[in-house]
Amino acid sequence: MDTKYVIGLDYGSDSARALVVNAANGEVLASSVKYYPRWKEGKYCNPRINQYRQHPQDYIDVLIASVREALSKCPEGTAERVVGIAFDTTGSTPAFTDETGTPLALLPEFAENPNAMFVLWKDHTAVKEAAEINDLCKRWPIDYTSYEGGIYSSEWFWAKALHVLREDEKVREKAYSLIEYCEWLPALLTGVKSSKDVVRSRCACGHKAMWHPKWGGLPPEEFFVELDPLLAGFRERLFVETETADKPVGHLTQEWADRLGLTTKVVVAGGAYDCHMGAVGAGVEPHTFVRVIGTSTCDVMVAEKEEIGDNLIKGICGQVDGSVIPGMIGLEAGQSAFGDIYAWFKRVLEFPLTHIVMESNLLSEETKAELVAEASAKIIPALTAEAERIHPSESAVVATDWMNGRRTPDANQLLKGTITGITLGTTAPMIFRALIEATAFGSRAIVERFRREGVKIDTVIGIGGIALKSPFVMQTLSDVLNMPIKVCNTDQACALGASMFAAVAAGIYPNVEAAIKAMNSGFAKEYHPIEANVEVYDHLYKEYLKIGHFTETELYNK
Amino acid sequence: MDTKYVIGLDYGSDSARALVVNAANGEVLASSVKYYPRWKEGKYCNPRINQYRQHPQDYIDVLIASVREALSKCPEGTAERVVGIAFDTTGSTPAFTDETGTPLALLPEFAENPNAMFVLWKDHTAVKEAAEINDLCKRWPIDYTSYEGGIYSSEWFWAKALHVLREDEKVREKAYSLIEYCEWLPALLTGVKSSKDVVRSRCACGHKAMWHPKWGGLPPEEFFVELDPLLAGFRERLFVETETADKPVGHLTQEWADRLGLTTKVVVAGGAYDCHMGAVGAGVEPHTFVRVIGTSTCDVMVAEKEEIGDNLIKGICGQVDGSVIPGMIGLEAGQSAFGDIYAWFKRVLEFPLTHIVMESNLLSEETKAELVAEASAKIIPALTAEAERIHPSESAVVATDWMNGRRTPDANQLLKGTITGITLGTTAPMIFRALIEATAFGSRAIVERFRREGVKIDTVIGIGGIALKSPFVMQTLSDVLNMPIKVCNTDQACALGASMFAAVAAGIYPNVEAAIKAMNSGFAKEYHPIEANVEVYDHLYKEYLKIGHFTETELYNK
Repeated sequence: MDTKYVIGLDYGSDSARALVVNAANGEVLASSVKYYPRWKEGKYCNPRINQYRQHPQDYIDVLIASVREALSKCPEGTAERVVGIAFDTTGSTPAFTDETGTPLALLPEFAENPNAMFVLWKDHTAVKEAAEINDLCKRWPIDYTSYEGGIYSSEWFWAKALHVLREDEKVREKAYSLIEYCEWLPALLTGVKSSKDVVRSRCACGHKAMWHPKWGGLPPEEFFVELDPLLAGFRERLFVETETADKPVGHLTQEWADRLGLTTKVVVAGGAYDCHMGAVGAGVEPHTFVRVIGTSTCDVMVAEKEEIGDNLIKGICGQVDGSVIPGMIGLEAGQSAFGDIYAWFKRVLEFPLTHIVMESNLLSEETKAELVAEASAKIIPALTAEAERIHPSESAVVATDWMNGRRTPDANQLLKGTITGITLGTTAPMIFRALIEATAFGSRAIVERFRREGVKIDTVIGIGGIALKSPFVMQTLSDVLNMPIKVCNTDQACALGASMFAAVAAGIYPNVEAAIKAMNSGFAKEYHPIEANVEVYDHLYKEYLKIGHFTETELYNK
Repeated sequence: MDTKYVIGLDYGSDSARALVVNAANGEVLASSVKYYPRWKEGKYCNPRINQYRQHPQDYIDVLIASVREALSKCPEGTAERVVGIAFDTTGSTPAFTDETGTPLALLPEFAENPNAMFVLWKDHTAVKEAAEINDLCKRWPIDYTSYEGGIYSSEWFWAKALHVLREDEKVREKAYSLIEYCEWLPALLTGVKSSKDVVRSRCACGHKAMWHPKWGGLPPEEFFVELDPLLAGFRERLFVETETADKPVGHLTQEWADRLGLTTKVVVAGGAYDCHMGAVGAGVEPHTFVRVIGTSTCDVMVAEKEEIGDNLIKGICGQVDGSVIPGMIGLEAGQSAFGDIYAWFKRVLEFPLTHIVMESNLLSEETKAELVAEASAKIIPALTAEAERIHPSESAVVATDWMNGRRTPDANQLLKGTITGITLGTTAPMIFRALIEATAFGSRAIVERFRREGVKIDTVIGIGGIALKSPFVMQTLSDVLNMPIKVCNTDQACALGASMFAAVAAGIYPNVEAAIKAMNSGFAKEYHPIEANVEVYDHLYKEYLKIGHFTETELYNK
């Protein structure tokens, strides 16, 4: 038997997952999840100013631990048959490096300096720098954000780079180049010794670094110098080309083969952002809208180049050739809050528990803590059970989903959420139902934007925690979108997607489509719209749009 | 010593209060509160259809019990020195009577028939009939609602009368006339033997029965017959004239003097609605806005006739010559929910207590019940304590106060409430604060309407539960209105007002103004606007108006 295995490595915000997969059919042999140790202690972060930094040593620690643990659960002989590995990571999560491509925090003198670490995607310290980039792009003859939805975010590469340079003299003196999280791990494992040799991720650079072939790669040096002379010289030292993640970056070095318990035959694929590989793991294809649904959503599509043509799709997060499947245009959108909205309402309802029950003299401290923990955990299930019993047309409550601003369509962080249609008879479950509907209406606004811009959408694939665990939310989404929704038969779609890239890079499949066909997990469940609800929601969606238009134009447009 | 006493009798929705007062200075000797016994059992009501009926025997029972108990607490000899009594009651609370003026439910064959009882102000069974009255008034050459704010309510006299006539054949056959609660008690105690001899209340008839001297009293017979032939003949049997409440209706009969423990020297004054006498008890005068602030508000003003002239004040509840102080125009407005909105939010927050803690297996049934009762009772105090710490400009949450529709300005029962400006960081106390601000903005909208219509307002007097017990709400109201608010030094302003009318009717004072001057209770507290907040609220009030305009014109205008 010459069964071959691949390892998909999925690096999220809090933890990393290693998945050992049979490359022939996608069967999962074993997996392991490890939490970043320094991050778990809250080190290098300051939530008050939205500063979130991660130490590169955290990534190394969990890499070794998770791969070794996953392999230890597999039958003997598995490790020798592993032929490829691939990484997906959060992003844009960049760090400054020295000339060798080593993140500065791995040098002893920077070991405890947050500015020398990876700046996690959700770090918002660079709001001012993002505004300056937007301002300059609108004044420049070319708008370098035009393939990134037209608005540069404080969560992205250049804004973060400039912010750190301005903040930290020591980093400024030492910084030679920059690297994205998903680029660094493949470079590390394949023994790259110069920052110039790092293989750059099409997905990361196309979405977040204003890289596009139309203007020859990165924007020109004059653009960066005009933005801030501190950026002078970086462009030259960075890169011209980017690669799709199906391309091999190299083989494991002997050192890393030893550390991971693998062989130097292992091919390391290029890196990409988690949701993009997740879409592949979910079986993305044209006209299919793949949604990673958790605290927020990340929505990914692919389209044939002919379908998009020269069209600049307005108001989405970006469109990048090969960011998902090589040869097709990858499209990204998303809602800046989804499950977070339900969690917000839960926090509001916890008030009597945390502020009153916890202060009561009727119970012991221990019983209080136990009771409050139990009650908190049951709030969402209890709300769901009650909300399911309410007919969509019965409660007049309508909400918008902008409690965390709006990512797409048309990014606007100033927007805020609304709940209307409240009467003295409105109950907590009615509000909860309206919030679920609001998140579905926000989804529909994205779908309608894609369609308006000429991108056909027939069906939806859901992955992520809420897709798997909340049938009521998914049914509501299906009703509101008036489309079937398939839910993947895996809770590890991102790692599974990474394993598909590993298999292609290792030469087992000629391309990503073939890997998807052979290795997909199938679907656990399919939701179909309930016809009677579709009509009610068509009406309520119009109310949602009206409320949205009003709050955007009259209240929160600065 | 020839000290004279008067008794003020305040008949609310659930209970009646008797107040024995020194007529010379308003000093309260004793009081007694008694709950309506049949009403307390929930008899004759059906909350599901908003049917609320009260048995006239309830009124008789509490009358005797409360007057006797109050007198029993007074020094010996007090009863002989009581020279006047007066009633204020809820309204519009009408009942059908026979030819003698006896409410039908006091006849044995109608004793258990809710249609033969008083139809309490908040009974909403006559929605259809109110719509028909409005429709006919707009088609008729004269709009008989024009001194009642222009919109006839299902809570009022004729709508209720027509509804009962349509519903109940037995009542239809026996009904000879109609009487308001505040008219019946004086008639009963002074031995009226014919419905034609009942002294009719200017306050009740002017506000709720479309009575106005401009069209010779009630609307013409043809109007009623056009509305429904079932109403034929009632106008003729009802009344032409109405009287202000300072006028004596008569003396106690021997029978009633015996039953109450008083003498036949006691003068009985005319009746009026509770809030109108409450305004007198609070010391109403021109340019002063008196607010009874509880679950909802009832707002009363008086204006010199010259100030109003021929002006029809749009969108308030009504304007009636002598409804409050004889010789002046009484003006009524109000918010359909005030404290009820805070209670609504409390109910929403109770969800984890009632739906989860009560189901927990960690505690005994008894402990659960005790804990939940304790926690529920503390929700509003805990929210208040937290909300007070939030600066008005700090939370972006803005709400409207239309959770129970809008009474004034411009009655619209279809309107619903809104909460906007919500972020993932919005807390329960922030929402609570926004709801308090919303009720204050609703108050400001009423004040601004009066001013726009030429009625000057300099100061506010607050009475009622919230005025006395919620300094945070009152301070917010003062800040939002940018006016001082005085809070009466009595929680019995309505009964005290009734005692002033009793004193005038008994000839102790030449008029109501003189009684107010001598008998007022003074003020317990005065709130002054905090300058820094005034500006913030000026801005937020504009947002409130914008949100209100949007929801009214785009969402809830049917």
